[in-house]
Amino acid sequence: MTGNETGASSPFQQLIRVGIALTSTQDLSALLTLILSEARRMVDADAGTLYVREGAMLRAVAAQCRTLTERLGDGKAETLFDSLAVPVSPNSVCGSAALTKEVVNIPDLHAIEGARLAACSAAFDREHGYTTRAVLAVPMIDPEDEVIGVLQLINKRGPLQQAGFGELDVRISLALASQAAVAIRNARLTAQLRRAHRDALLGLSIAAEWRDRATAKHITRVTEYAGILGLAMGLPDGELDLLVQASPMHDVGKLGIPDAILHKPGKLDEQERRIMETHTLIGANILNSGASAVMRMARQIALYHHEKWDGSGYPKGLRGTAIPLCARIVALADVYDALSTRRCYKEAFAPEKVLEIVRQGAGAHFQPELVDALLAQLGRIYEIRDQFGDTQAELDAFRDYANIELKEPDEDQY
Amino acid sequence: MTGNETGASSPFQQLIRVGIALTSTQDLSALLTLILSEARRMVDADAGTLYVREGAMLRAVAAQCRTLTERLGDGKAETLFDSLAVPVSPNSVCGSAALTKEVVNIPDLHAIEGARLAACSAAFDREHGYTTRAVLAVPMIDPEDEVIGVLQLINKRGPLQQAGFGELDVRISLALASQAAVAIRNARLTAQLRRAHRDALLGLSIAAEWRDRATAKHITRVTEYAGILGLAMGLPDGELDLLVQASPMHDVGKLGIPDAILHKPGKLDEQERRIMETHTLIGANILNSGASAVMRMARQIALYHHEKWDGSGYPKGLRGTAIPLCARIVALADVYDALSTRRCYKEAFAPEKVLEIVRQGAGAHFQPELVDALLAQLGRIYEIRDQFGDTQAELDAFRDYANIELKEPDEDQY
Repeated sequence: MTGNETGASSPFQQLIRVGIALTSTQDLSALLTLILSEARRMVDADAGTLYVREGAMLRAVAAQCRTLTERLGDGKAETLFDSLAVPVSPNSVCGSAALTKEVVNIPDLHAIEGARLAACSAAFDREHGYTTRAVLAVPMIDPEDEVIGVLQLINKRGPLQQAGFGELDVRISLALASQAAVAIRNARLTAQLRRAHRDALLGLSIAAEWRDRATAKHITRVTEYAGILGLAMGLPDGELDLLVQASPMHDVGKLGIPDAILHKPGKLDEQERRIMETHTLIGANILNSGASAVMRMARQIALYHHEKWDGSGYPKGLRGTAIPLCARIVALADVYDALSTRRCYKEAFAPEKVLEIVRQGAGAHFQPELVDALLAQLGRIYEIRDQFGDTQAELDAFRDYANIELKEPDEDQY
Repeated sequence: MTGNETGASSPFQQLIRVGIALTSTQDLSALLTLILSEARRMVDADAGTLYVREGAMLRAVAAQCRTLTERLGDGKAETLFDSLAVPVSPNSVCGSAALTKEVVNIPDLHAIEGARLAACSAAFDREHGYTTRAVLAVPMIDPEDEVIGVLQLINKRGPLQQAGFGELDVRISLALASQAAVAIRNARLTAQLRRAHRDALLGLSIAAEWRDRATAKHITRVTEYAGILGLAMGLPDGELDLLVQASPMHDVGKLGIPDAILHKPGKLDEQERRIMETHTLIGANILNSGASAVMRMARQIALYHHEKWDGSGYPKGLRGTAIPLCARIVALADVYDALSTRRCYKEAFAPEKVLEIVRQGAGAHFQPELVDALLAQLGRIYEIRDQFGDTQAELDAFRDYANIELKEPDEDQY
């Protein structure tokens, strides 16, 4: 241990702070930008590119250039690198770093004989009037010793720029690249798990839809309407995302309702109606988890989307703001869609008639502000209605068991 | 920047490596142990305790003591700390560190007047014949400035032990505590997301069960049988976990089958049978995601659990090992359970009759090795059958819509 490391802020202490910042960033795209900007800051590089490995290719996922940003303005320089990709091969600086798992540090690219390594940069430089001199390419190696990408830093700035990147720059970038590799891996695993979770939730919605395909696109429309109403009510982005994720499950409890009631063409009698109403309780029991915000909201929506503003709804008879906002929103979206589309027990109402019923429900069935929001957003609402309209072919195909198409599973992107 | 940090391995370079190790560890309990052992190693401490904050209390979640381990043997020393908890208050070293968000560094606990802070350690020392002298308590503060726990290091070892923990020890532990705080937070978020995902998958199983409660505990039994068979077939732990998570969804496609067929008391006619068989395709379409290993396996099981070893099954007529192992296992578990329990269309067979049918199916319906495995594990199988038997009350309660109990959502543990 060397005593003088107790000084204010050594590069390695900075690296620890940067490592914490990287680890705190779960959003993959924000993380990639952060890795590159911190790397550039720590070694004082004018530009840099972050490549992620995809099989035998390295694809640029972040690029920054101070000189070009000053010349072209914010946001312009980054787009120059959008389609940049190089193979993992000895024929480029970054490809070589990925192939050999070794740092490639070139003080002056133009001084290299044959310029094989420089070809890639030369084309870029010619096109954009930039001069790439010093290049430092550092492989990002995860704890399983896999190269997951390459961090490329370009043109050392400051008094040492003629000498290119030094030994300390190399060691700092190597340490940062290792931290970045783990952070990227974690962010990917989290994204994958999030997607798996979203797909499992989607499975619940699809399952509900299978029970009642006469309302095939009902789930999509209600979700879209809910999103429009949520936005109009000023829900913050996070809540709006949750609402859009949770709304498709509002009727999942219908899985538990017998066909004879669910598909009855006529009006339900008193006992049938009571059984139908239990879909709110069944739905809440299916979504019986407080383990995530989306599951909690989905449960609330399933349970309370038949409550009414004046307290005359079911299953609890909640009134006004005692009904969770998400459920108030879905209540209006759900009824609006039921009125404006055909069901097995009724034809669609004319648009004017639908609006009349909705207006009459303000303060009784629905929160008045929500009715106002719907009326103010009719343009968007009609777009959704038309975009996701039920076609006769789809209605005919409902329960065509002889022609079920087996879908290929969605493959994972990362 | 100081040039001599290019030396072989400064404490801060070690910290970067430790930070990467922490970040790579997603299992919370392994992570807590790692944090403590790395902290002890880096500052050369004889003992240490890691506390996690739960409201107004700090609860010990990891404890290590070299001296007591040498005296008592591996595993014994840790149990001494099992129930250790201290309030966040000025009355203990760790409580004080959590309260003030400041490091508490005491070279000799016994030299302190009044011994208010020493009370907690004194009781422990008396009971276990240990002498706590130097104590270093470092708050673990996450990037949102929340104290999520305290890292306590006890008794400096080596030549500097009389002086207790020094300035460098304090700075190293602080840096490590910050990294640990983020790693713990991430591991918790991941655990929470995993649980949400598991619960969403569970929702799919419960949903299927709601359609067909005559087989109320069927899902649980099939899952348990599948686990027994998977273990007997030598599946590695990871695969076995997946199998147990994925099996409950094997019949999720029955959601799409009309009541008139699903609940028909007699034998199905040809057309009804063909519709019933589509539950494999419907199930696969509901579980249509490659985003996680469990979803992929669940899809395979749903799709192929009615294939037969000799190729005479459905929906694809796959033969032998072309059928995924998970589906072969669930096929046997599913049929065994159907034979040994009552269904709406038949009584349960006697155990001897069930075994006779299963034996006859070896090489035809079932993989022979799986039949052998089932026969070799009959004791466990019968335990499961008895433990999760359908009771008459439960069968009677099926679709008792007047008495649906609304379950409280499971709350999150972390």
